[in-house]
Amino acid sequence: MRIEDLETPSVLIDLDKMKHNIVRMQALCDDLGLAFRPHVKTHKIPEIAKMQIEAGAVGIACQKLTEADVFIQANLDDILIPYNIVGQQKARRLADMALFNRIAVSADSVTVIEGLSEAAAANEIAIRVLVELITDQNRAGTTVEGAVELAKRIDADEHLHFAGLLVYPSNASVRPALQEVLLQLDEAGIGVDVVSGGGTAAAFQAHEVPELTELRVGTYVFNDWTTVLNGVASLEDCAMTIRAMVVSRPTSERAILDCGSKTLSSDSIDGGYGFILEYPEAKMYRLNEEHAYVDVSNCDPRPKVGEIVHVVPVHTCVVTNLHNTIYGVRGEHVEVAWNVAARGRVW
Amino acid sequence: MRIEDLETPSVLIDLDKMKHNIVRMQALCDDLGLAFRPHVKTHKIPEIAKMQIEAGAVGIACQKLTEADVFIQANLDDILIPYNIVGQQKARRLADMALFNRIAVSADSVTVIEGLSEAAAANEIAIRVLVELITDQNRAGTTVEGAVELAKRIDADEHLHFAGLLVYPSNASVRPALQEVLLQLDEAGIGVDVVSGGGTAAAFQAHEVPELTELRVGTYVFNDWTTVLNGVASLEDCAMTIRAMVVSRPTSERAILDCGSKTLSSDSIDGGYGFILEYPEAKMYRLNEEHAYVDVSNCDPRPKVGEIVHVVPVHTCVVTNLHNTIYGVRGEHVEVAWNVAARGRVW
Repeated sequence: MRIEDLETPSVLIDLDKMKHNIVRMQALCDDLGLAFRPHVKTHKIPEIAKMQIEAGAVGIACQKLTEADVFIQANLDDILIPYNIVGQQKARRLADMALFNRIAVSADSVTVIEGLSEAAAANEIAIRVLVELITDQNRAGTTVEGAVELAKRIDADEHLHFAGLLVYPSNASVRPALQEVLLQLDEAGIGVDVVSGGGTAAAFQAHEVPELTELRVGTYVFNDWTTVLNGVASLEDCAMTIRAMVVSRPTSERAILDCGSKTLSSDSIDGGYGFILEYPEAKMYRLNEEHAYVDVSNCDPRPKVGEIVHVVPVHTCVVTNLHNTIYGVRGEHVEVAWNVAARGRVW
Repeated sequence: MRIEDLETPSVLIDLDKMKHNIVRMQALCDDLGLAFRPHVKTHKIPEIAKMQIEAGAVGIACQKLTEADVFIQANLDDILIPYNIVGQQKARRLADMALFNRIAVSADSVTVIEGLSEAAAANEIAIRVLVELITDQNRAGTTVEGAVELAKRIDADEHLHFAGLLVYPSNASVRPALQEVLLQLDEAGIGVDVVSGGGTAAAFQAHEVPELTELRVGTYVFNDWTTVLNGVASLEDCAMTIRAMVVSRPTSERAILDCGSKTLSSDSIDGGYGFILEYPEAKMYRLNEEHAYVDVSNCDPRPKVGEIVHVVPVHTCVVTNLHNTIYGVRGEHVEVAWNVAARGRVW
């Protein structure tokens, strides 16, 4: 099938660029002696996870239980879920997964740990738990004192195994807190298997945090306009583009494309919703569900109705999650149509 | 099944509230003598479209061809697509649909009209085309002069039928332009079957635009935090809530819920990403893909890890489109699990 036969909007993945991204991040981790654990939330496609494993990754990270389910069904069996699994139903499901697969999970509170312990006890296993330390992302995670306390508690629980520490993102700023926790755990005689860091931008600072043993990175596989603006990828490294069409030119300054927030998501950066490769001077300044508003006043020439353009999205992980199928392309050919198998798996 | 057996996050639709919304909007249109054509992009579920038809709607609006496909398969056969269908492949598909169904489509340029005409000629039919007039939304659409010219062109084409005018949103501000086009078409001896307006907020101004003959409204069926803040619905009218869980309480001021942008979308209003019914003082100030950041500093008491909350989303149409299944509930019971059949249908 040729790309020109695809309808618009469609999500294209340049296979050569993706391969290059996979090889490059694996090499970065290999050079630093870090285990590499790609985060599959970016693509949600088992076939791509297998390419990452084949390139040298030790396993994968999944953000939710049902996302992990899909990859387990596809025979990926070393999975870290860097998320608090809360509630009896979910904890039991996790414990069932851990019966036949190598699973680890993070926790940042006693409530989470107690639920995991109970579910593990019911299955007569020990679940591997990493303690999440807070970072300047100010999201989930606990303090230095909290982390030490939780690690001790996990270590003392026969149905849990303390598997290490987890941070997101693992910027250099997290190092002092990480060092303090490691020191206190060493004094307490508690071994730390893994120090897991994450984030595509943070990966390029990993050499400044030698405490890390593992990296979880997702976006790098495709890259997007955000990684470009953050200086960790070039436009050439962006494997994902959205093939879209100009469907209206209501004024000389404005073009409307057929890729709206149901195609690109509403994620924006610096007031922009995507970068149009054919019209670098254009500004995609607003989205409705099926319309992209583009200011083309700085473009010469300006696009016509019916013209095809390619958009580098702001945030690749949320784009994949909107589509049932995305297309791997090389040159003018569609070489593979992937089912986004874990799309919509939010719990 | 009981609601408490559903995992979090799940999308719930209060069946009584939805029914009330359907009846209320139909009554508003009936009172004004307007044909009512619900926009199914909000729910993407044929079963709900059939409830809307049963309540008195004349047909439905679909935003894209493949969305319309799903509803045609479900035997809904009076469909308006208020969108420019561009390109030979899509125009042919539309012409095929029009062979066996009552289909109308909008257009705002000669390019679009020429493509439709060619496809209609190949099928030896006439496609019904409405001309889209620009509004202060400044999206697609043409000027007064452009609309008159396009209407004449459609009227003169044996394979097209001029079906009327279309605006979005149909606020009172559009009236002068609408009157001018109608006057000029009258002078040219061109009949206007339909003047189609749209928008949930605009519906409540429809009495100020007596030129309208039809309304396309989507969000009203569920309502959301935006329609509440716009003053066209109360919290009681919000049929959609997201059942979510507090998964982390990293600080005394912050709670993390398990509904992120892959559950709620990134659409925001006034810096907020959703309204938490149990904690009206809370502010959901940021989303990552699977995390909602909530400032609970004004809440007393404050939520605990493991607690269930219900979130009224900012924009219901983009929420439905993220989920494969949403749940119709009454009291404590899940009465129906709907497949979001047209989810992801973006072309």
